[in-house]
Amino acid sequence: MISMDDRLKEQIDFILEIDKMKEILRQNYLADGSARENDADHSWHLAMMALILSEYSNEKVDVTRVVPMVLTHDLVEIDAGDTYAYDEAGALTKEKREKAAADRIFGILPKEQGTWMRGLWDEFEACNTPESKFAHVLDNSLPLFLNHAAGGISWKEHKVKRSQIYKRNRITGDGSAKIWEYMQELIQENINKGNIIDDRS
Amino acid sequence: MISMDDRLKEQIDFILEIDKMKEILRQNYLADGSARENDADHSWHLAMMALILSEYSNEKVDVTRVVPMVLTHDLVEIDAGDTYAYDEAGALTKEKREKAAADRIFGILPKEQGTWMRGLWDEFEACNTPESKFAHVLDNSLPLFLNHAAGGISWKEHKVKRSQIYKRNRITGDGSAKIWEYMQELIQENINKGNIIDDRS
Ligand SMILES: [Ca+2]
Repeated sequence: MISMDDRLKEQIDFILEIDKMKEILRQNYLADGSARENDADHSWHLAMMALILSEYSNEKVDVTRVVPMVLTHDLVEIDAGDTYAYDEAGALTKEKREKAAADRIFGILPKEQGTWMRGLWDEFEACNTPESKFAHVLDNSLPLFLNHAAGGISWKEHKVKRSQIYKRNRITGDGSAKIWEYMQELIQENINKGNIIDDRS
Repeated sequence: MISMDDRLKEQIDFILEIDKMKEILRQNYLADGSARENDADHSWHLAMMALILSEYSNEKVDVTRVVPMVLTHDLVEIDAGDTYAYDEAGALTKEKREKAAADRIFGILPKEQGTWMRGLWDEFEACNTPESKFAHVLDNSLPLFLNHAAGGISWKEHKVKRSQIYKRNRITGDGSAKIWEYMQELIQENINKGNIIDDRS
């Protein structure tokens, strides 16, 4: 049996390890377009959205499970890096890289805490519960809200097409009809402005 | 009565407003000493600590209240700025600046959500419930853990004295005897290394 102090040491090791999230830059810009956000920023912002927007989930969600899920959903990027939403080559190896990362990172914690947090991450990835579906709505809508606020800077940089956004969001409406409706309005507005390429035939 | 869409608009306005947290730099450095953390980073990190360390609270805490409390406790700094823990001139005007900021920022939300979140902030500031006392333990211990990991860089920069740290942490032991015990070990270690000035007479 491990002593109290070994246990605290494992917990502090984990807390220091995840500090690296603050240095993983995302492709996405801040709302004012001035800088890129990092993974810790992003995870905090999603948790704030979870506190504010849960009424729009199609199915009733337990917010006290959505919040830890979004706080931890990107921890695997400490090892696996951020794969941009529309990077198709990166997407091919993403699953394998992220599983190995989850084994290592959640493994730093005392066993029952690591198992609990790994379970939240597996649930997020499987995306088949009300909480994980809603967490994906948040993760997919926040970059769109920020990008829209920043004048579409990241869409323009990556020459993003309407079909790519719709493909990524093919289940967003299952999580929240209301937020997906609002997102579609913003997508159309940014097509009209020339920020998103309209590739409908 | 406001329509569904006015309500969503207020919520999205709030979500975009708080994006500014990502640009408020703190005096504290990351664990590797490479850069300063920002307020969004810091709030995320505290929420992660709340998920992992609540067993060390002296009194039983409801983690599902500690997490939103630490996620939101620094939002007032969007207007009021970050006051360094050991800035005594800034501390004099801090309360007034932060109250005005709370009125404006929480006021962006739909009324009942703003009232709920403002209540969490007032509770954090009053620091007289198990959850708010534990939230302060997290808020006071994380900079110490990071500073220790970063070789004491921020203490050295600001010529921080032992008495200042003990004054700031005068109630930390009331929130968590165990974490305060560990913090005191780290303080002594950094005094021994010359990172913290020992001003005991
Ligand atoms: Ca991601």
